[in-house]
Amino acid sequence: VKLREIGEFGFIDRIAAGAVPADPSRVLQGIGDDASVVRPSAGLLLVTTDLMVERVHFLRDSITMYQLGRKSVAISLSDIAAMGGVPHDLYVSIAVPEDLQVEELDELYRGMKEIAREAGVDLLGGDTTGSRQDLVINTTVTGSAAPDEVIYRHGARPGDRILVTGTLGDSAGGLRIVLESLRLPDEIAAPLLKAHCDPELYLREARLLAVSGRVHSGIDLSDGLASDLGHICRASNVGAVLESGRVPVSAELKRLCEIAGGDPLELALSGGEDYRLLVTVDPDAADALADEIRRATGRTPHAIGRIVEGEDIFLETPDGRLDPLRLRGYDHFKR
Amino acid sequence: VKLREIGEFGFIDRIAAGAVPADPSRVLQGIGDDASVVRPSAGLLLVTTDLMVERVHFLRDSITMYQLGRKSVAISLSDIAAMGGVPHDLYVSIAVPEDLQVEELDELYRGMKEIAREAGVDLLGGDTTGSRQDLVINTTVTGSAAPDEVIYRHGARPGDRILVTGTLGDSAGGLRIVLESLRLPDEIAAPLLKAHCDPELYLREARLLAVSGRVHSGIDLSDGLASDLGHICRASNVGAVLESGRVPVSAELKRLCEIAGGDPLELALSGGEDYRLLVTVDPDAADALADEIRRATGRTPHAIGRIVEGEDIFLETPDGRLDPLRLRGYDHFKR
Repeated sequence: VKLREIGEFGFIDRIAAGAVPADPSRVLQGIGDDASVVRPSAGLLLVTTDLMVERVHFLRDSITMYQLGRKSVAISLSDIAAMGGVPHDLYVSIAVPEDLQVEELDELYRGMKEIAREAGVDLLGGDTTGSRQDLVINTTVTGSAAPDEVIYRHGARPGDRILVTGTLGDSAGGLRIVLESLRLPDEIAAPLLKAHCDPELYLREARLLAVSGRVHSGIDLSDGLASDLGHICRASNVGAVLESGRVPVSAELKRLCEIAGGDPLELALSGGEDYRLLVTVDPDAADALADEIRRATGRTPHAIGRIVEGEDIFLETPDGRLDPLRLRGYDHFKR
Repeated sequence: VKLREIGEFGFIDRIAAGAVPADPSRVLQGIGDDASVVRPSAGLLLVTTDLMVERVHFLRDSITMYQLGRKSVAISLSDIAAMGGVPHDLYVSIAVPEDLQVEELDELYRGMKEIAREAGVDLLGGDTTGSRQDLVINTTVTGSAAPDEVIYRHGARPGDRILVTGTLGDSAGGLRIVLESLRLPDEIAAPLLKAHCDPELYLREARLLAVSGRVHSGIDLSDGLASDLGHICRASNVGAVLESGRVPVSAELKRLCEIAGGDPLELALSGGEDYRLLVTVDPDAADALADEIRRATGRTPHAIGRIVEGEDIFLETPDGRLDPLRLRGYDHFKR
């Protein structure tokens, strides 16, 4: 079915159909007015927004619409997690090219609504418009956290242990499979493609970290470990040492590099879109906190290094040599 | 200067430079972290988001970057006004094609920041990315209003007077000048182009209406009077009568139609992007409220009709005949 057959308002009706707020006493107005109207949650208000553009962030033939829906919302949910917050509401703006079918849009919104429901988030509004060429999706997510729970980029202290919530570089491996049309056994390709197209979220980990009171800074890994750790270091006026032997790399990423070439560690350091959380933690609390998270979620954070004085980031090899980290993450304007 | 010379983070630094929150005790984190962190304002939280795409909403050679910056923010501010709210914070996502110069982006953000400052709004975050072809701008604006102040679409009652805050069709007139390359005397063209490229806002009017307690419903006129009044009627289960002789049309729009053809009333009824406020008001309060707004702002709302029982919208001619209103507003997917 073509979008022009149902029209903009028919499309909005389809979006609104599956988007009934979980708690009507909190949401006074969702989709269907000039703005949403919500009773603010206790604590501070968090707001993040992310833009995905076809041919820049995704190719339409290498991700399903359902996955694209999930991913477009996941990247904003991950930002709220990185602040230690609880996500609440989702707003989606979309610019739709003429060749996209209504059924494809239904799949896209099914993905968005499913991940929103999993995160306890309501879809409360957005904007719908045409596009001459590229599919464009902007997501805005609001959240909340108590003042003493918020995790900023600027709080890292020398001595902090650096934790990440999962393996690194898998998304970059998945991207290589897509861009280089790699043919790999499914047990290798599937998890890497999943990491790239439908990343895991760490909302429960985020809250355990936030309420612990022992986390000094944090960020989500979207640009790549080296780049994002650089943001923490610049914001906090500190340096860092990453222990190369501790950077967690999946068996699948190692196998990909064995088969197709490349260095798993380099992908882990510079590959973007991992959407793991990186936090710096009071060294006395790091082990207990990692244990607590493992027991509560079944997923173990990895200690990969430490914050130091200065402003440089070093990679420490297993034999104790410190090399300046020169790898850079993704910059949308430098190629 | 090319964007690739300063890079994504150089660009973000330029945006952040002029964006210092007015009240640091309210804004704990603006640009520079994964999400903004704000102390919520009293009352209910309002959120709106709007997407503008090149070649759909604007042509790059028929609007200045400064105007485009103002307009992209204005359309979201207008949504908060339509709800009766006070706007607070702005978030801007932008996808930039390679051929755009840094100086053009500076102009774009100068426009955004200026209108934000005029509205008392802080720029607290966003997203920056590349685009393969079209310039894309998404704005999200938060606001607040007391529970008994919020103006919804769904509250219109039979008997209500319909008020609009300014003349209608001017933006459509400006669009005609652009699309038909009309050559008109500057005193005619300039105000119509201004209405199209840099629309007036009605934030003070919105607040006077909101606190009056006599406004039953409201919307901002973005799709066109006929279409937007239709939204009010459907949401409220009512009909409406527009008095054709009272629909306010500017002298400039009349002159444009005399010179280039067309019917000013038709442009006023179906032309989009006016961004005037339309409200339905207790009939006993309408005159006093219009007077109060004129005294406070120097701008006079126009009474253009009334809400009636039923579900249809009629146009009442000066001789009292009722014609069903068949004109439709803009639909992004039907052409």
